[in-house]
Amino acid sequence: MIKVSVLYPNSEGKKFDIDYYCNNHMSLVKEKLGTALKGGAVEVGLSGGEPGAPAPFLAMGHMYFDSMEEFQAAFLPHVATFMGDLPNYTDITPVIQISEVKLQQFP
Amino acid sequence: MIKVSVLYPNSEGKKFDIDYYCNNHMSLVKEKLGTALKGGAVEVGLSGGEPGAPAPFLAMGHMYFDSMEEFQAAFLPHVATFMGDLPNYTDITPVIQISEVKLQQFP
Repeated sequence: MIKVSVLYPNSEGKKFDIDYYCNNHMSLVKEKLGTALKGGAVEVGLSGGEPGAPAPFLAMGHMYFDSMEEFQAAFLPHVATFMGDLPNYTDITPVIQISEVKLQQFP
Repeated sequence: MIKVSVLYPNSEGKKFDIDYYCNNHMSLVKEKLGTALKGGAVEVGLSGGEPGAPAPFLAMGHMYFDSMEEFQAAFLPHVATFMGDLPNYTDITPVIQISEVKLQQFP
């Protein structure tokens, strides 16, 4: 299983519309990726490790795919559409991490 | 639901023993956190967003708790134990992100 994480680094003065992201952007992502998208998650940063320390990331979005090949086949044709929606919810340039899921046990 | 992510930034020459982390470190974490730990995941970085670009993080570990209070009550008494195990699998100083889970639908 492959996890694609879109991480939005936190810095002063940056904006992130979490409602738009959860409701509108994620609907667009689901619609375009179809059955290749096996799962997803959205998280909003609360803090760093020390109480009161700022969260390194203002928000994070995650998408799961069966393989790197399925991700690329499903995602690459829609990159321009997804990037075009970005200014509707943030002025942050995201960091992308593609990972292999080694262990998972979810609540 | 609260998600605590322990992110290990990637940089040249750094080591990370994923087998020790999955088998030994995660067993220690599960044992010490007990029922406060609602779920967890381990991922290993494959790439950045562009094919062939290095992954921003060499590995990531995630833990789920019902609330920030439950996380703090369960985790803080064992911080020294967890940190003491760190040199057994890595020489990377991790970045901690505590997030609120807004949406999730897992494979």
